[in-house]
Amino acid sequence: MSRSLTIALAPGDGIGPEIMAATMDLFKAAGVHNQADFVTVEMGGAEFAKGNSRGMSDACIRTVESCGILFKGPMETPKGGGGKSINVTARKLWNAYANYRVFKTLPGVETVYSKAGINIDMAIVRENIEDTYGGVEHRLSSDMVQCKRLISAPGSDQVHRFAYQTARKLGLKKIHCGHKANIMKMSDGLFLDRFKAVGKDFQEIEQADVIVDALCMNLVLKPQQYKMVVLPNLQGDIVSDLVAGLVGGLGFAPSANIGNHISIFEAVHGTAPDIAGRGIANPTSLVLSGLMMLRHLCLFKEAATIENALLATLESGIHTGDFGYTSGTNGAKVTPPVGTKEFTKAIIDNLGNTPKTVTPIPDAQAGDHCFIRPPAPTGQQVIRTFKNLQTQVVGCDIYLDTALSPISLAEEMNRVCQDTPFKLTIISNRGTQVWPTGSVYTECVDYYRVRFELRDGIAPGTFGQSRCVALMDKIAESFTVCSYELLRLFDGVKGYSMAQGQ
Amino acid sequence: MSRSLTIALAPGDGIGPEIMAATMDLFKAAGVHNQADFVTVEMGGAEFAKGNSRGMSDACIRTVESCGILFKGPMETPKGGGGKSINVTARKLWNAYANYRVFKTLPGVETVYSKAGINIDMAIVRENIEDTYGGVEHRLSSDMVQCKRLISAPGSDQVHRFAYQTARKLGLKKIHCGHKANIMKMSDGLFLDRFKAVGKDFQEIEQADVIVDALCMNLVLKPQQYKMVVLPNLQGDIVSDLVAGLVGGLGFAPSANIGNHISIFEAVHGTAPDIAGRGIANPTSLVLSGLMMLRHLCLFKEAATIENALLATLESGIHTGDFGYTSGTNGAKVTPPVGTKEFTKAIIDNLGNTPKTVTPIPDAQAGDHCFIRPPAPTGQQVIRTFKNLQTQVVGCDIYLDTALSPISLAEEMNRVCQDTPFKLTIISNRGTQVWPTGSVYTECVDYYRVRFELRDGIAPGTFGQSRCVALMDKIAESFTVCSYELLRLFDGVKGYSMAQGQ
Repeated sequence: MSRSLTIALAPGDGIGPEIMAATMDLFKAAGVHNQADFVTVEMGGAEFAKGNSRGMSDACIRTVESCGILFKGPMETPKGGGGKSINVTARKLWNAYANYRVFKTLPGVETVYSKAGINIDMAIVRENIEDTYGGVEHRLSSDMVQCKRLISAPGSDQVHRFAYQTARKLGLKKIHCGHKANIMKMSDGLFLDRFKAVGKDFQEIEQADVIVDALCMNLVLKPQQYKMVVLPNLQGDIVSDLVAGLVGGLGFAPSANIGNHISIFEAVHGTAPDIAGRGIANPTSLVLSGLMMLRHLCLFKEAATIENALLATLESGIHTGDFGYTSGTNGAKVTPPVGTKEFTKAIIDNLGNTPKTVTPIPDAQAGDHCFIRPPAPTGQQVIRTFKNLQTQVVGCDIYLDTALSPISLAEEMNRVCQDTPFKLTIISNRGTQVWPTGSVYTECVDYYRVRFELRDGIAPGTFGQSRCVALMDKIAESFTVCSYELLRLFDGVKGYSMAQGQ
Repeated sequence: MSRSLTIALAPGDGIGPEIMAATMDLFKAAGVHNQADFVTVEMGGAEFAKGNSRGMSDACIRTVESCGILFKGPMETPKGGGGKSINVTARKLWNAYANYRVFKTLPGVETVYSKAGINIDMAIVRENIEDTYGGVEHRLSSDMVQCKRLISAPGSDQVHRFAYQTARKLGLKKIHCGHKANIMKMSDGLFLDRFKAVGKDFQEIEQADVIVDALCMNLVLKPQQYKMVVLPNLQGDIVSDLVAGLVGGLGFAPSANIGNHISIFEAVHGTAPDIAGRGIANPTSLVLSGLMMLRHLCLFKEAATIENALLATLESGIHTGDFGYTSGTNGAKVTPPVGTKEFTKAIIDNLGNTPKTVTPIPDAQAGDHCFIRPPAPTGQQVIRTFKNLQTQVVGCDIYLDTALSPISLAEEMNRVCQDTPFKLTIISNRGTQVWPTGSVYTECVDYYRVRFELRDGIAPGTFGQSRCVALMDKIAESFTVCSYELLRLFDGVKGYSMAQGQ
């Protein structure tokens, strides 16, 4: 193969440059640089310091988009100032929709689970774009802040398809969808429905689902029962770090963010500013992330050679200071921790060797596949799942910034809708119905939802949204309308939930 | 004390009646029934079956509100039909705003952590009303579902105050706030700010905060470092079940839902329909929840007697079938599992005995306190934190159900706002900016956010919301406006977030 591959390289902040240099030394020694060019890009702390609120230069963006692959070290987003996380910006900007993390018990990395003889070998696939990570937040009243949790059908389809495809390549018999659809019935309900729908194209893989709180308990009690779990963004964030803990922490697990056009491979641990520049950081997570990247780029043999050398090094008991273990594998003597360079040199010295206590990695594996990049889009694409649905307006939810009591509010609202096609059906506060019935023990805040639905005898779709906007206009004469939602039927099915206690 | 206490009793579904009967037998034997009357209420499966979508009769509601205390077994909410979880409805209806769960390593309950010699002793306090648990969900386009995540200042204050007060009673030196304020900067930012603000009244308790994903990893790696963590609703739900796993599962941990007027004590495990009626269920969680209730009601001596008898029974190796352990504590012989009645009888036989391998529970403890119920409110109360803020309208976010490209949409929006005080500032899709700049690699769905802000030279507050409603009305002539939010300054501070990549 000629050097046709070009990889954008962002060493990162804090310990980033040290562990990236170590990884590059290792990759060079294993011949990776004969296959690929690495181009350093400007991204992270230095860019923020220049006042670039995105944390990356325009040249960086062009290079990453041209390469299609970004290999990055840990980066710090400056606190305060409302700046968004650079890691999240990168994932969203380039639609790297699937966060794919693999967790395996490593020799020489001692944990509560390894000591109990429990072997961890699982993957977590996390939706990377949606959920509350859109960061769409509003203060709606003096006392109430809202964050929009968004789950789309095509966004869910993308991550589910990636999970099934990966499971198929790995020969897995079963995958789980983790969710909280018992509470978030519509949003996580959609995520779960799409998991089932996309799975129809993967008949050989058994589908299972698990509620996220039960999943977290089960992962602690008996992690062996899961091979791959796909989850919405926040839940996947939490679960993947939990599972990282099972194998010893973020320093021992890799991460990939896969998109159709651009994929990002990165260490997800912090920048560890306290030890930056001291030459003692552990490069294992970044090396493992690099191996996911090499395999993504078809460099299977190089990846296997490096992974075997790493495993052989770990099982020999050579370790950096963060391993913190008390006894060597198989009774090996515990040696003092070594620095980043010594650790890396040990791996380089082991190139060509294979581990003895765990199964060596073969040059070619069941999961092998080459990523083929599609042609670049000419403009932003709109991805769709459901089209041509018949929608009918049936009312609206209007949200008010007011500290009135529910009864007084109901009187006002009943008056204002008198000569409209709508009747007041419920008032809720923080999701709990407070009118027409409610408990005096329900405490309210200064933010109400008032629901108007078509009067009896008026068929859905008789009126369009203009009547709803007119109603809102009327209400806005005497109340602060902080928020509004149109209530519709989609192919005859209600597109809105009931209130708690309704 | 005369029998002045009355407790509403809801045995629950599945194994509920069996474990509640066992708990009542134990309470009777310990003399609890000399101090309190128990009144059975209609709540759970039978009520749902009668078509009552709330899962509780009107008489049940009256009784619980009169007693102020509900002791309940596990209940099943029927799947499908859009019905809300009965457990969540009860917590919200009665504003039992703090879910308080304590987790302690129990003798005879073998886990990965107990085998590693790691002793668990911590409490999780979860906000119980807000977050996405309001269940306010809307389908906003064919492909997009939204769930509102709501965090209020007074709601956060209530749960934080409970946590600090409990920490003070227990003599804890430090409590943690778990959150995801690095992503949900405004909503979890508010939750964290209120944690710090309320903590000013508890100067002797050190405040610490931890990002929820790091918390979950740390809980797996080194759980001993936390004594009490307070979290928003969903994160608290996940974390409390994770910690339940550390002590052996939901069958070994109690739960209380504390409100100012009404508190609910319950087993949070499932109804286990597969073993219901077979007399083999484990009542430990319900018994422990009952002990939290007894202490809430000042019955400290009865609670200590029962807890010591339970601990003595557990350390003797007597266990139900769900313990699944392989060796007895301190080399005790493993005996076959016993049934619910036999297990309960063993505890009753141990009344008056104390455990030998763990410290016996004293009759009176540092955390002792009597709950004094305030007078019933005469109507729904509006709780407030921030009042009399100066607000100024600066624009609005309008959300459209459309599959247009960002550029075409921007053209239309620029045209429509031409003769208004507003200019189009950004268009975002799933939170990511797609106009005026954006990446062709950002994939869009059929739901856009269009932001209008005051034109240069127009001061905030020059116009009220009516100009925003008029703009929305104009847009609604040619687009489906599925959602809307007013943009305001609160005492000069922006009440809205930027888009990702802005």
